[in-house]
Amino acid sequence: MSRFVAFLGMSGPMWTQGYIAVDWGTTNRRAWRVTGGTVEDEFADDLGFTSVPAGGFPAAVATIRERLGDLPLLMAGMVGARGGWVPAPYLPCPLDLDTLARSLVEVPGERAFVVPGASFVDGLRGDVIRGEETQFFGAVHAGLCPPDALVCHPGTHNKWALMEGGRLTRFRTVMTGEMFSILRQQSLLKAWLDHEASPGEVFAEGVARGMEGRALTADLFTVRARVLLGSLAEEEVSSFVSGLLIGADIRTGLKGMPGEGEVTVMGRGALTRLFSAALTQVGRPNHEVDGEAAFLAGAQAIVERLS
Amino acid sequence: MSRFVAFLGMSGPMWTQGYIAVDWGTTNRRAWRVTGGTVEDEFADDLGFTSVPAGGFPAAVATIRERLGDLPLLMAGMVGARGGWVPAPYLPCPLDLDTLARSLVEVPGERAFVVPGASFVDGLRGDVIRGEETQFFGAVHAGLCPPDALVCHPGTHNKWALMEGGRLTRFRTVMTGEMFSILRQQSLLKAWLDHEASPGEVFAEGVARGMEGRALTADLFTVRARVLLGSLAEEEVSSFVSGLLIGADIRTGLKGMPGEGEVTVMGRGALTRLFSAALTQVGRPNHEVDGEAAFLAGAQAIVERLS
Repeated sequence: MSRFVAFLGMSGPMWTQGYIAVDWGTTNRRAWRVTGGTVEDEFADDLGFTSVPAGGFPAAVATIRERLGDLPLLMAGMVGARGGWVPAPYLPCPLDLDTLARSLVEVPGERAFVVPGASFVDGLRGDVIRGEETQFFGAVHAGLCPPDALVCHPGTHNKWALMEGGRLTRFRTVMTGEMFSILRQQSLLKAWLDHEASPGEVFAEGVARGMEGRALTADLFTVRARVLLGSLAEEEVSSFVSGLLIGADIRTGLKGMPGEGEVTVMGRGALTRLFSAALTQVGRPNHEVDGEAAFLAGAQAIVERLS
Repeated sequence: MSRFVAFLGMSGPMWTQGYIAVDWGTTNRRAWRVTGGTVEDEFADDLGFTSVPAGGFPAAVATIRERLGDLPLLMAGMVGARGGWVPAPYLPCPLDLDTLARSLVEVPGERAFVVPGASFVDGLRGDVIRGEETQFFGAVHAGLCPPDALVCHPGTHNKWALMEGGRLTRFRTVMTGEMFSILRQQSLLKAWLDHEASPGEVFAEGVARGMEGRALTADLFTVRARVLLGSLAEEEVSSFVSGLLIGADIRTGLKGMPGEGEVTVMGRGALTRLFSAALTQVGRPNHEVDGEAAFLAGAQAIVERLS
């Protein structure tokens, strides 16, 4: 991706020397120093939300400035969650970019601002996101996806989001990545899940089965039985299980979200490609958008709205 | 339960002094010394299959005789699995008690016999059990359930089994217990899963939702969101998640098994009661059978067939 974020000058005197944008996820974090719309430096490490000890956020935040400079911070993601640095609310859907930018939570005396998350409540069902909202608005703002778009955002927690007229109107989380991770760490299948999953015949078979809507706890056991009975090779288990989980995920996402158009698959790396392959398999056109580019565009769009 | 197993004398001179029956599960094992059809001593510990190190079965088996006496061993369960003491096959369904008893695997020179497991293959889907087959046949043999019965056997891996004319004709495994366990150990919900699940309104809500056939990975995330948004109390999470998993399990079991009659819920303890409550909730009559009584009856029925 280009390191160039935006032409526009930044608003507000605090931001004229540039800023640091931080995307703080569950398992890792990334930070970029942005000056005049251009990324000048960046780093990533595995100090995700779950690796920060209780009360450890001030120290964890300080390391960012040590590495990238003494600049204002614009932070999205789990840094604003319960147990994060400062609590930032979940703003209800439908949500637009202006409301999001007006609702930043300032950390007093720290020149640091936390982007709120978003919530969607539909009857008894509720859902929340933190961090992805910045990417969704950024992608629309930068023209990476249209203002009306169904977005699939794979990760530890895959997010399906509906953008309508540039507003985030609904979304739904499916914990596909986390489920794969915990199955790999301690389930009865763990010995066979060390291989990398890859698109192909076995993955497609898993996707087709996952789309059928059976209980995951039933399908997973058939994997073990098939290996024991010789109809699935041990090295195929990762791809099959990945397909099962992604098939069930896509079934959920497409069922809950109206529309027939192209799906924007937002992210990076192998997992994004697996979701794209699965969507193609089930006949849904899709295109990939780099999640980092979307995040930087979102951060810049927010900064431009500050005064 | 009664300590009394059977009136009949045992066949085969090796068994006339009594025997030790062992039910070796994934996470624990139980052993009983049976003489003249009566249980005289027993013990249980947590040396389940997954806790026995590679090559450690001879030593793990020896501790049984140290505690219960130098008697012949009749062992069912994971002791015959890959990585167990001796490999015992999976016998295909339909399977009857005589065939099972004729197919014991003897450990040479050890006066020890391993009960084979069973397999069921239906198209691409395969399934396997080890240990429960002895309970199923024992329950029918002892009149604890009719010869035509749908059996639900909760545990680490819940088994749905169809008995027809006293034969095991098909079965299906759902890894409900294991899923709950791994979610409690390391998922995003783990902090809230320490409470014991109990039947009641919240559990019933989970069952109803689980019966609807949505993706588990989607439903699980809604639990977290509901807690964050205040519509579910932290101490209710265990019951709700338990209901979700058991609802999906029951949906799988009832859909895959024909019949409308009473379900035999076989096992012991809180988990069995939760399955019974969920079956009652969805309108399916059921009665509980003590799993230990069924196992001891099965072991005795096998021993009676040896000569």
